[in-house]
Amino acid sequence: MRSARFHGVRDIRIDDVAEPELRPGAVKIAVAWCGICGTDLHEYLEGPIFIPPSNSPHPLTGEAPPVTLGHEFSGTVEALGEGVTDLAVGDGVVVEPYVVCDTCPPCRAGNYHLCTNIGVVGLAGGGGGLSEKIVVDRRWVHPVGDIPLDQAALIEPLSVARHAVVRSGATRGATAVIGGAGPIGLLVAAVLADLGVTTIITEISAARKNRARTIADHVLDPTEVDVRARVLELTDGGADIGFECAGVDAVMDQVLDAVRPAGVVVNVAIWGKPAAIDMQKLVVKEIDLRGSFAYAHDHAEAIALVQRHGVDLSPFITSRIGLEQLVTHGLTALLDDAGTEVKILVHPGSP
Amino acid sequence: MRSARFHGVRDIRIDDVAEPELRPGAVKIAVAWCGICGTDLHEYLEGPIFIPPSNSPHPLTGEAPPVTLGHEFSGTVEALGEGVTDLAVGDGVVVEPYVVCDTCPPCRAGNYHLCTNIGVVGLAGGGGGLSEKIVVDRRWVHPVGDIPLDQAALIEPLSVARHAVVRSGATRGATAVIGGAGPIGLLVAAVLADLGVTTIITEISAARKNRARTIADHVLDPTEVDVRARVLELTDGGADIGFECAGVDAVMDQVLDAVRPAGVVVNVAIWGKPAAIDMQKLVVKEIDLRGSFAYAHDHAEAIALVQRHGVDLSPFITSRIGLEQLVTHGLTALLDDAGTEVKILVHPGSP
Repeated sequence: MRSARFHGVRDIRIDDVAEPELRPGAVKIAVAWCGICGTDLHEYLEGPIFIPPSNSPHPLTGEAPPVTLGHEFSGTVEALGEGVTDLAVGDGVVVEPYVVCDTCPPCRAGNYHLCTNIGVVGLAGGGGGLSEKIVVDRRWVHPVGDIPLDQAALIEPLSVARHAVVRSGATRGATAVIGGAGPIGLLVAAVLADLGVTTIITEISAARKNRARTIADHVLDPTEVDVRARVLELTDGGADIGFECAGVDAVMDQVLDAVRPAGVVVNVAIWGKPAAIDMQKLVVKEIDLRGSFAYAHDHAEAIALVQRHGVDLSPFITSRIGLEQLVTHGLTALLDDAGTEVKILVHPGSP
Repeated sequence: MRSARFHGVRDIRIDDVAEPELRPGAVKIAVAWCGICGTDLHEYLEGPIFIPPSNSPHPLTGEAPPVTLGHEFSGTVEALGEGVTDLAVGDGVVVEPYVVCDTCPPCRAGNYHLCTNIGVVGLAGGGGGLSEKIVVDRRWVHPVGDIPLDQAALIEPLSVARHAVVRSGATRGATAVIGGAGPIGLLVAAVLADLGVTTIITEISAARKNRARTIADHVLDPTEVDVRARVLELTDGGADIGFECAGVDAVMDQVLDAVRPAGVVVNVAIWGKPAAIDMQKLVVKEIDLRGSFAYAHDHAEAIALVQRHGVDLSPFITSRIGLEQLVTHGLTALLDDAGTEVKILVHPGSP
């Protein structure tokens, strides 16, 4: 079968590899759609990051590059391993793409996403969504019912957003400022809106600002307005919560400024370098700055959110390409993009 | 009366000023002892920071430099203003050194220490502990009973430490790593030890390491041991909580490394410049990084802690000087200090 594999920086190839074999307790899935994630871009440009280095196979998967990419995917159940009785061939599903040890302290505490040996499928081995087929253990497979499979490929980033919102402790009636209107910033705003939270997005790209206006209550361009002053006008002393969804020093600073004393800021972004943070802002306002990583126990709720039309994922899909176009029309398009793209979906099946 | 006043950077003078007048609802205090705080050092070297600039009087006190210094002080009640009936002349007291607006959102929420207009007595006007007398509103005066007044001057930094421990959510049986064994780091360790928390202090100064060993369960020198590896040996996957009490990038990094996934780090230090923080450590371990500022509703508990001998403050007093020696044997001594000093107390009364 065809599989997009990371061989090294700026070296992703469409390889022909053997189909994965079904095993007891596992599910074989024919991939329908797989989204390209910012993490994939980071790996393409600067990797390996979450991908293990060539000389050091991942402790749980035993794999090192070349590894198959793709961790935001949907598909159809093709076959069920021995003992799997609660799914049926043909079911639409998504995958929580983890390989964990189940023995470290975080795993024992139920925080499997913080497993000290964690591997992410599509990065650290175990196959990936940018290939025609994948086999994963039943525990990671979530049926999506009647959600169209293209939208279902966005359940993974929606789970990232939902997890960040849960981390924030947001409740109905609160006000949130969201720094950055990339895919995760927009999805965070969508989850918050469903929750009854007033949302303020900060963004500088014209295309992203336009899109953000369809989701958020307020969109502020820090090159045009004083974000802190405007948020103080819109709120009683500042936003209750903030989300850093850009990984940019100036955005973090804006969010720290816009949040009220005793407020909460959730960092959702992946940072390519150390952040320069004005700790005095954190101190004199006693802000809680909380890291949020991926998701745990979020997929079922994210699926239910889409099923009850709390979030409409269809506008987030801006392009669809085939596997052969992954680099030319996928990764390169996103790198050159001025904000018109949100999520590019890749169809890895036969052309 | 004599009063140590900040006129500008490296310009602190012992001035002769008028005694403050008693007013209704207030208490006149004859200062017994006043500690020199790291904040005073920052003001001396780099101020004005919490002191208002010369051209911009503080909105609540109406004062600008020269302002009287000293916010860690004890004294004796000398006179009671009209309507103050629950204190007696001669009572030993300490002062929570705030001037607040009572109208901003944090004040209305009970977070008076986060008042958006806050002034700290001894920095922003309203007199200070580095003068012979001071008049403050009754609400900020806390009787200390039979605590000796030299030790009582340390109730203020002890309240800072207690507040940081409350912010951490520390509970009996937990393990904490404390970065830096200055006065606040040591007091944080002392409060934690009383709470039944196992304490690990990191420190590089020989004198401070020796002192830390009298309080903490473990003292690690990062120039001698791998702090993260040693903490992993001492714990089940890392410390539950961490305290940054140094304001140094390398110390923050050690604390982030030493804390377990889903752990809490409290920043207590004042930073002179932006901190360079590896956000990936915050993200992949989902750490909560919480700012802690001064204290609120902590003084009564800090006093009770000393009264029941939960913390012995006497070893923290390393020098006693007169007001005339403030710069020569106080500020300068601390700046030149290699770790032998913890708290220098100043007696501002007549020689």
